[in-house]
Amino acid sequence: MTITLYELTGKDATRPFSPHCWKTAMSLAHKGLEYSGSAVPFTAVPAVENGHGKTVPVIRDGEHILSDSFDIALYLEETYPERPSLFGGPGGIAMARFFEAWAQTQIHAVIGGALLLDIHAMLAPEDQVYFRESREGRIGLSLEEAVAASQSKVDGLSARLEPMRLVLKRQPFLGGQGPLFADYIVFGAFQWARVCSASTFLAADDPVADWFQRCLDLHGGIGRATAAAA
Amino acid sequence: MTITLYELTGKDATRPFSPHCWKTAMSLAHKGLEYSGSAVPFTAVPAVENGHGKTVPVIRDGEHILSDSFDIALYLEETYPERPSLFGGPGGIAMARFFEAWAQTQIHAVIGGALLLDIHAMLAPEDQVYFRESREGRIGLSLEEAVAASQSKVDGLSARLEPMRLVLKRQPFLGGQGPLFADYIVFGAFQWARVCSASTFLAADDPVADWFQRCLDLHGGIGRATAAAA
Repeated sequence: MTITLYELTGKDATRPFSPHCWKTAMSLAHKGLEYSGSAVPFTAVPAVENGHGKTVPVIRDGEHILSDSFDIALYLEETYPERPSLFGGPGGIAMARFFEAWAQTQIHAVIGGALLLDIHAMLAPEDQVYFRESREGRIGLSLEEAVAASQSKVDGLSARLEPMRLVLKRQPFLGGQGPLFADYIVFGAFQWARVCSASTFLAADDPVADWFQRCLDLHGGIGRATAAAA
Repeated sequence: MTITLYELTGKDATRPFSPHCWKTAMSLAHKGLEYSGSAVPFTAVPAVENGHGKTVPVIRDGEHILSDSFDIALYLEETYPERPSLFGGPGGIAMARFFEAWAQTQIHAVIGGALLLDIHAMLAPEDQVYFRESREGRIGLSLEEAVAASQSKVDGLSARLEPMRLVLKRQPFLGGQGPLFADYIVFGAFQWARVCSASTFLAADDPVADWFQRCLDLHGGIGRATAAAA
């Protein structure tokens, strides 16, 4: 039975952009599980599966409905143990939490601000109203001010990626010779940027950019199948 | 047969201080392996085991001589698979490399500069000459200038630890419910600071400080058995 993945989109229902939804799309593909994406704009999130989660991704796998990309990965690992592992053992589950925290504080905290107006431009009018009000309330700045304020953080992004660069000197993926959920956690952030914005966050000669291209090639190129923003 | 751990000390041969040697001491204790420490001052490192390694730690386990704390951990994991795991599976091995790179770039790069004069003061005269010349040559500053320059980095250390703080909200160790080599990688850095310097690098109410205290309690308190610098 095909799994349903509820994933965030804007006006164009064929362009999922949420970093967290991309983590789940890659997790499903890693496990070789067929899924069909169901496009959800911001204002429709509360109604997904009768209000199951406050956020997407949400998946329905038969009777099972789950939200939160990490919880979904754990569910897939436990439910489909005979398929390729997303964690490579219990140590990998515990350590993947660090990648989640690192990506959130070191990458999302930078890219998220820079993308605010790009995301706004992708949304239908009613979602634009919700997005502007919720984000401006949270940040305490207009979207325009927040994007301007993000520039200095964007300038510092490359330095924050140094630990990852050192690891990639030694192995092609954060998960070792092949990708694990840790890779998809970080991939989600850069795929978010790629789908939403024509801005460049990684220099072409950065080993992190090479790794990102390798991730775009994974699983039949499902990441690449959603075109980069023009 | 008892394993020998060659570990860096200063004038006082009972106070090993190298972060990398502490990673190995904790790894051996984690595996429940008996070892005897062999004190090595800086200028004696090249002669360890007839010049086996350019750095310590070095261990001798019967016929096997190894250097590099990560390589030693891998050797222990492979050689003593029936004892508690240091990695929790192959994913944990790959991901521990990220902790090594993160600690090196985010913690050692800060603490290392701040400790230069403290370390110098712990050394015998011939080691002081070596230490000052090698470090000043590498850094391009006098030790005194380097310590002064490190203050702004020390002020920024707390912010760099935010990913770890988020993980510790969820689980007591980086390795999950119990410690893994990932914990010892980060422990080594703060134990280095504790043994060398009376300076405080962690606020008392920082969850990272609580975690460090938990690490000092591990394995019969071997970390705590070397007293903090006064």
